[in-house]
Amino acid sequence: MAEHKDLSKLCIHTITTKPWNIEEAARNFSESGVKGITVWRDALEGRNIKQTGQMLRDYDLSIVSLCRGGFFAHKDLNKRKAAIDDNKKAIEEAAELGTPMVVLVCGADPLQSPEDSRKQIQDGIAAVTPDASAAGVKLTIEPLHPMYADTRSAINTLAQANDMAEDLNSEWVGIAVDVYHLWWDPNLEKELKRCGENGNLAAFHICDWKVPTTDMLLDRGIMGEGCIPVKKIRSWVEAAGFNGFNEVEIFSNAYWKEDQSELLKKIIKAYKESS
Amino acid sequence: MAEHKDLSKLCIHTITTKPWNIEEAARNFSESGVKGITVWRDALEGRNIKQTGQMLRDYDLSIVSLCRGGFFAHKDLNKRKAAIDDNKKAIEEAAELGTPMVVLVCGADPLQSPEDSRKQIQDGIAAVTPDASAAGVKLTIEPLHPMYADTRSAINTLAQANDMAEDLNSEWVGIAVDVYHLWWDPNLEKELKRCGENGNLAAFHICDWKVPTTDMLLDRGIMGEGCIPVKKIRSWVEAAGFNGFNEVEIFSNAYWKEDQSELLKKIIKAYKESS
Repeated sequence: MAEHKDLSKLCIHTITTKPWNIEEAARNFSESGVKGITVWRDALEGRNIKQTGQMLRDYDLSIVSLCRGGFFAHKDLNKRKAAIDDNKKAIEEAAELGTPMVVLVCGADPLQSPEDSRKQIQDGIAAVTPDASAAGVKLTIEPLHPMYADTRSAINTLAQANDMAEDLNSEWVGIAVDVYHLWWDPNLEKELKRCGENGNLAAFHICDWKVPTTDMLLDRGIMGEGCIPVKKIRSWVEAAGFNGFNEVEIFSNAYWKEDQSELLKKIIKAYKESS
Repeated sequence: MAEHKDLSKLCIHTITTKPWNIEEAARNFSESGVKGITVWRDALEGRNIKQTGQMLRDYDLSIVSLCRGGFFAHKDLNKRKAAIDDNKKAIEEAAELGTPMVVLVCGADPLQSPEDSRKQIQDGIAAVTPDASAAGVKLTIEPLHPMYADTRSAINTLAQANDMAEDLNSEWVGIAVDVYHLWWDPNLEKELKRCGENGNLAAFHICDWKVPTTDMLLDRGIMGEGCIPVKKIRSWVEAAGFNGFNEVEIFSNAYWKEDQSELLKKIIKAYKESS
C-alpha cells in the first residue's frame, strides 16, 4: 500500500477541530497544507453562507461536503415532513456554500422496526432527489455502525447502502464510506468493489477505533492509534476506483480539550504514516 | 405472536442477578417458578462443581449452559495455546456440572486483522471439538455485536456464525443467538432460518437495547424497555425450529444496584408481557 505523497487528498471535517470556528479552522488547515474541508452545518451558524464558501476557496480549500442531512425515519408523519424540509434546506445551503455533496446520516426511530425506518429513509431520499439534481448536489448515504441502529441510522452495512443507492438509481445519490462504521464487516472489500462498480463510491472518511473505546460517540481515535486497518481499507477503496479526498472525521472529547494546533499536527503525521 | 403460557421455558443467567451467589439465585429462581439456569463460571468459584450441579437439579432447575469459553484469537501463540487449555477446562466443568452446552465468546485481538482472528477462532474450536464430543457437551458460537469486534469477538453476524458452524460440521458445534447482538441485522430472519435448517440453532438469549445506552457493556435493559422487537425475533427463532429455553442475560450496573428480588419480579413480568 502506497504512502500518501503529499497532502493534496487530505480533507478535515470542521467538527474534528470543534473548538476552532470555521475561520480559524480554514486558516490553520490552509497554512498546514491541508487541501480539503468538510463543513458541519453548526459551523455556519450566524454566517453568510456564500461569503463563507468564498472565504474557504480564498484559502485554496476544496469544500468536499456539507455534513449533514438525513434523519428521515420517524414514526410521526409530521416529523418526517419536517425532515424533508430540513434536507431541502441542507441542499440549498450546500449549493450556496459551493460544495457538491451533502452527507446523510439517515436516521432511525426506536419506536418502530428497523424495516419501517429503512422504508422511510428511502422514501425521504427519493423525495428530495429532484432538489439535489436541480442544485447539482449529490446526496451520500453514510452507513453507520450497528451501535447507532437505535436512533441514528437504520442503514448499518455497506450492503444495505448499496442496495438502497442502486434502487434509487440516481446520479445524485451516492455513498459515504467511513472506516469507523464499517471496518468490522467481513463483506467490506466485496461491497466496496460493488459500490465502485455501480458508481456510488462518493466519499471516504477516516479515523480509528480506540481500544478500549470509552464513549459510544465521542471517543474516536486518530489513524494508527486503534485497531482499524485504515491503509488496507484505503487500498480497497482505491481499487474500487475512488480517488477523491480522504476526510478526517474525529469526534473526541479528549482531543477537543487539547490545543487544536497540536491536534492538527498529529492528524497530518498520522495521515502520512497510518492511512 | 403467542404469549408464553407459563415459565417452563424461562432461564436466567447467574450474571443477571450477580449480587446473589449461585445458591441464592437457585433458591430464588426456583421459588419464583423459573425452570432454567445458565451458570457463569465465576459463580462456581470455590465450590465443588458436581455438588453445585446437584444442588441446582434439587431445585428442579435445568442447567441450560455454562458461560463461557472462547477467546481463541490471539496474535501470541502461547495465548492461543492457553485458550485451548482453558476451553478444555470449561468443557470438563460443564460435564461435571451436568449441562449440555458451553457458550463461546470467540475473541478478537486488536493487534491483528479480523480475518486472522476468525481463522484462529475456527482452528481453536476445531481443536477442542473432540473433547466436547467425548464429554457430550455442545460448543455454541455466539456472534457478538460489532461494537465488540475489537477485543471480544470477530464473529459479529449470524451469517458468519452460520458459515463457521457449517464449515466445522460437527454435532458438537452449534450457535447461541442473542437478540442484543443481532437485532439490527437486516438478514436476521433469513439467517435464523438457515441456522435452524442446518441444525445449529442451540440457544436463544434475550434482553433489550436501552435508548439511550450509556455503557457499551453494562447497560442492558429488560425486555420491553428498549427498541429490540423481542417477540418478533422469538417468532423467527421458533419458526426456525427452536423450542428450547429463553435465557435472560442482562449485564446492568443499574439493575445490580437494585434489590435482586425486585429485579427478578420485573424479569418475570417482562418475560410474560414483552418477550
